[in-house]
Amino acid sequence: MENNLINHNRFMGEAIKEAQKALEKDEVPVGAVVVCNGQVIARAHNLTETLNDPTAHAEMQVITSAAAYLGGKYLNQCTLYVTLEPCVMCAGALNWAQLGTLVFGASDPKRGYTLHENLLHPKTLIISGIQKEEAQSKLTNFFKSKR
Amino acid sequence: MENNLINHNRFMGEAIKEAQKALEKDEVPVGAVVVCNGQVIARAHNLTETLNDPTAHAEMQVITSAAAYLGGKYLNQCTLYVTLEPCVMCAGALNWAQLGTLVFGASDPKRGYTLHENLLHPKTLIISGIQKEEAQSKLTNFFKSKR
Repeated sequence: MENNLINHNRFMGEAIKEAQKALEKDEVPVGAVVVCNGQVIARAHNLTETLNDPTAHAEMQVITSAAAYLGGKYLNQCTLYVTLEPCVMCAGALNWAQLGTLVFGASDPKRGYTLHENLLHPKTLIISGIQKEEAQSKLTNFFKSKR
Repeated sequence: MENNLINHNRFMGEAIKEAQKALEKDEVPVGAVVVCNGQVIARAHNLTETLNDPTAHAEMQVITSAAAYLGGKYLNQCTLYVTLEPCVMCAGALNWAQLGTLVFGASDPKRGYTLHENLLHPKTLIISGIQKEEAQSKLTNFFKSKR
């Protein structure tokens, strides 16, 4: 059910709403949701500054939330939508969770997991570029405002 | 002050005490402590089963705790002692934290971060093999008991 473009756009829209919440807290604007059986079961945005915690990326928080919701450590039946390509830490976490499908928006040529090989679980499907302009423009505007 | 073998053994002993706590909860026995200015400022053990959370590795928890204790996201003045070689997720987190020194005990040839190149921060010093027999024997006995 999740595997069509209308749904990908809709759920990435939810992740972008989360990124907007991060922006309003002066955080690097990245948002994520986890979808299972066509429903959002977890949502979060980057809180590294607010929590003074380098591990508080949107993805880490939604993995924890989704696993708690499902009552199990594995997200192999889930799709995670995130506005920016995950970093190494988050890719490592997604590997442990055996994520079903990863959908991300903008690429991260400086810190993205694709700078390294084979960080995700071999069974994880990957779809990139969904609403990347919207995701990227939030990031670009944020970093411009910091200069 | 931390950079001598007596201290490395002492602080790794504290990490092993944490691993023992994990073992008593039927968790994969891995423990970690963070040391700053010669003092343990954070300690934790693996809680992935107890919390139903694939991100609840000992290292992730001590990074969060140490950053909260210090009031900042960077652990560049700290040494993290962990009984087992960190995984990709934890190495990524240590990179964001710009960890000063990493000291680990046993190697992890299946899931260790050294299977990939350049995952840690370039300024992080690395010391391995401290009390590795003790750390490894806890893991070996745990997995034997599961067969």
